[in-house]
Amino acid sequence: MRIGVFDSGIGGLTVLRELKARLGGHDLLYLGDTARIPYGTRSPQTVISYSLRVASYLVEQGIDALVIACNTATTHALPDLEAACEPLGIPVFGVVHPGVQAALQVHEEGQLALLGTEGTVLGGAYHRALAEAAPDQELIAVPCPLFVPLVEEGWLEGVVPTEVARRYLEPLQGRVDTAILGCTHYPLLREVIASVLPGVHLVDSARATAEAVLEALGPGEGTGSLRFMVTDGPERFADVGERFLGERPDPVEWVDVGQPTAAFSRPLPA
Amino acid sequence: MRIGVFDSGIGGLTVLRELKARLGGHDLLYLGDTARIPYGTRSPQTVISYSLRVASYLVEQGIDALVIACNTATTHALPDLEAACEPLGIPVFGVVHPGVQAALQVHEEGQLALLGTEGTVLGGAYHRALAEAAPDQELIAVPCPLFVPLVEEGWLEGVVPTEVARRYLEPLQGRVDTAILGCTHYPLLREVIASVLPGVHLVDSARATAEAVLEALGPGEGTGSLRFMVTDGPERFADVGERFLGERPDPVEWVDVGQPTAAFSRPLPA
Repeated sequence: MRIGVFDSGIGGLTVLRELKARLGGHDLLYLGDTARIPYGTRSPQTVISYSLRVASYLVEQGIDALVIACNTATTHALPDLEAACEPLGIPVFGVVHPGVQAALQVHEEGQLALLGTEGTVLGGAYHRALAEAAPDQELIAVPCPLFVPLVEEGWLEGVVPTEVARRYLEPLQGRVDTAILGCTHYPLLREVIASVLPGVHLVDSARATAEAVLEALGPGEGTGSLRFMVTDGPERFADVGERFLGERPDPVEWVDVGQPTAAFSRPLPA
Repeated sequence: MRIGVFDSGIGGLTVLRELKARLGGHDLLYLGDTARIPYGTRSPQTVISYSLRVASYLVEQGIDALVIACNTATTHALPDLEAACEPLGIPVFGVVHPGVQAALQVHEEGQLALLGTEGTVLGGAYHRALAEAAPDQELIAVPCPLFVPLVEEGWLEGVVPTEVARRYLEPLQGRVDTAILGCTHYPLLREVIASVLPGVHLVDSARATAEAVLEALGPGEGTGSLRFMVTDGPERFADVGERFLGERPDPVEWVDVGQPTAAFSRPLPA
């Protein structure tokens, strides 16, 4: 099968890495919408519009399944992507539900924490998924806007990331036993986050998402292939991407995702 | 006259503030391309394409002059914007030349420094402008990618911004007497930057640009008006914008800049 994986940029490579480890018999197409990154501070309507455009392009490439490897896009655009893809027989996987399930498995008692972008925290998808799975479970959601630029800059340890993490996360100390890393960039700051929240389970939804996709699609029977596409800056993507993927993404193609086909079009925000 | 002012987002409000103080007799239209912010890490072709689209929209609003209140857009797109606007009798003002002129006025000896986004530093427009104005003058350019997200987060003082500034700017200590704040966000970090570079002249191109526009167009004879438009997130723009403008931008309209007219179209990057 051909599996399309999309993210606003580079963070989704942490999901691709886990997918590749489990579903390497499939062809994996990764598309990073680097011309419109970051999604995390944009309005829901704009995130939906961008996500539909990217998904439309991947569907034109003949994908059999779609993985939304981005928490903000999953938060805002999952229903619209399902509505566009499922009539075509293309199942859609997001990162929110698997992350919530994984958190509930390790969580013992008290409140759960969600760390994410502004869009993910305010969008409420984690709250809704948790309300379905565990109606009485409380969730404290903390937006951490500087984590993404820190990771993109490659500052993963030392004074600055530790102080940033302390400022965002100190209010959680002693109040939570489990925190969901609700952004695909955050696993790269795992050690810094753990130093501020010692003893807290840190849940990475990349792994949980890959497990969910594996369960649905199986490991694949081919030899598998990897293809990397971006909407801007292939060189920069390859340079920064290595930290996320564990190997250099190469080659990286520039693509113009253009306008979405009719099934993927929605009115713009007004 | 009607003057169009554009930026990738919110930083250009520091330029608008200076324009308003000097050219308040004109009608000022501000357009922040918040659906595509940030420009600072994007490829030159993409910045050109976005800038032309925004300029095309402003021209349709009947502007008589265009101010590019963004260092990255000036760096990459000034020649294309001039080529599209000047045949229509619309003069174009960027922030790079005024910033260089202002720096040369206070600079005493040795090397000059430029602090900016990755796009501004690598784009070379400051180097070219300086080579024209003062051919033997050396310039050390330092990209400071975390300054913009820090300012947008409102962290303008304390441990984190000071440590970030120290990490970027310590190599300049004792080597420069003048530094150009080559990004419209950076004036909000002026005190932190000054604490790491004591005694160094910090040149803010917003003021220099407004002076250049005043000299060309005069102060205006009407009562003047202000209009704010963004391509995404009007509420967020109003909330964060107050720090930049010194007053709350209100009301803020959402606009769809759509496709540029023919004169403003360029092939996409390939």
